[in-house]
Amino acid sequence: MDTQIEIICIGNELLIGKTLNTNAQWMAKRATSLGITVKRITVVGDDVNEIANAIRETLKRKPRFLITTGGLGPTFDDKTLEGIAKALKRKLRVDENALKTIKEKYEAYAKAGKLGKIELTPHRVKMATLPEGAKPLPNPVGTAPGVLVELENTFLIALPGVPSEMEAIFEESVAPLLRKEAGNLMFFEASIYADKIMESTLAPLIDKTMHDNPYIYIKSHPKGEEKKPHIEIHFSTTAKNSQTAKNRLGKAIVQLSELIEKSGGKVKQKKAK
Amino acid sequence: MDTQIEIICIGNELLIGKTLNTNAQWMAKRATSLGITVKRITVVGDDVNEIANAIRETLKRKPRFLITTGGLGPTFDDKTLEGIAKALKRKLRVDENALKTIKEKYEAYAKAGKLGKIELTPHRVKMATLPEGAKPLPNPVGTAPGVLVELENTFLIALPGVPSEMEAIFEESVAPLLRKEAGNLMFFEASIYADKIMESTLAPLIDKTMHDNPYIYIKSHPKGEEKKPHIEIHFSTTAKNSQTAKNRLGKAIVQLSELIEKSGGKVKQKKAK
Repeated sequence: MDTQIEIICIGNELLIGKTLNTNAQWMAKRATSLGITVKRITVVGDDVNEIANAIRETLKRKPRFLITTGGLGPTFDDKTLEGIAKALKRKLRVDENALKTIKEKYEAYAKAGKLGKIELTPHRVKMATLPEGAKPLPNPVGTAPGVLVELENTFLIALPGVPSEMEAIFEESVAPLLRKEAGNLMFFEASIYADKIMESTLAPLIDKTMHDNPYIYIKSHPKGEEKKPHIEIHFSTTAKNSQTAKNRLGKAIVQLSELIEKSGGKVKQKKAK
Repeated sequence: MDTQIEIICIGNELLIGKTLNTNAQWMAKRATSLGITVKRITVVGDDVNEIANAIRETLKRKPRFLITTGGLGPTFDDKTLEGIAKALKRKLRVDENALKTIKEKYEAYAKAGKLGKIELTPHRVKMATLPEGAKPLPNPVGTAPGVLVELENTFLIALPGVPSEMEAIFEESVAPLLRKEAGNLMFFEASIYADKIMESTLAPLIDKTMHDNPYIYIKSHPKGEEKKPHIEIHFSTTAKNSQTAKNRLGKAIVQLSELIEKSGGKVKQKKAK
């Protein structure tokens, strides 16, 4: 059984199309590279009920990991912790360790910027106000900590939406946890490019190659048009070691390349311009 | 009551982080600009059950529109129509109109490319195999048609994943439908940029400005760090006409800019480099 993760991205800016969801791609790629299967990505707005509903629905599917990004900052519309508390029916309370860290950060900012004393206003205390039973995860590059809640089936982790902060907490605190849970299968991939063959002509050749190579998944990505085709063909497999993966990928690539050339197509290992 | 849309993006390439989900951003932006509220975006893989589950769960929330992208092509892993049929408990059957269009397209490709006769293989017929009661939507730039199913509460629309095809069908067949259902409210937005003020200092100033400007939504997007802040502040409103929107946005921008300057921050209308 593979180890599964779901990702929930929180922010109105994603739903109005203001922001391209690079966080989802980054995290999906990292989790996949660590041998975890990404099952679903959900995007909701800055609304406590929407967040709580998405979390509740996801937990019912029992992924080993549920990671949220966004909504941990000091403003009124940073509602992720409230949403988690609501989904889990837990109270929010100030976490003394998180508060101490935040206080020290502002003292350091004040000193570095010669800003005088920076008060611990309610908006700053909010970043240390966590659902009961949650643990703060250190933020090496920003102020708001990440948050970890260990549930019966799932590690629920909340990360900030600012990419540099999300990535830093992920690498420091989340990646080791994923690695530990991942089992010993890793993900490997390779692409070739085919010209002069329509995707609909390629389709049965892929079927045949996948049938003969049961551990290989092949997906075609048309980059041109059906009538003037330029198609990326992506091969992937999960394996215990890279030698097994390379052998499998190589065998499938050779077989499909030959089938394509026989059908009048042209195969390139590298992307054309 | 606002008119709501949900988007489901289908494709393993999104879940392994191979592909950045530009389709979701493009469609979210277009729907928002047409006065529709995007409530949720869901990404699932090329799996009939995952697709069917996501569709069923979404339909329960009764959005006016549910649009899927991806999974309409000729290969084995194009499973969207099968997923829709399963979610709706409808049979799949060859749509004669869709098949006729596809046949004509391949005849034209054959003629243009001097390819001889192109057979209507099972993989090509598959693109015309729609859930019962579905209508094909013409694809002005590719082969696979879009698909429309009118349900009791929801227009369910399936579009291809190739961006140029998705966008062309959207503009030709979907945008007019969204426009008709949108009511008379449009979405307006504007941004300013603030330096030398921490997001946690800005937070209560945003609260005050939103309190005094009840139709304005304000969201801060930190682009620097808390200790060396550079923050985009995004203002948005929905209104019946642009004059009302401009007046509202202008009033809120002036008020918040003054509050920021009073707190020692610097406001710019334009993005700093």
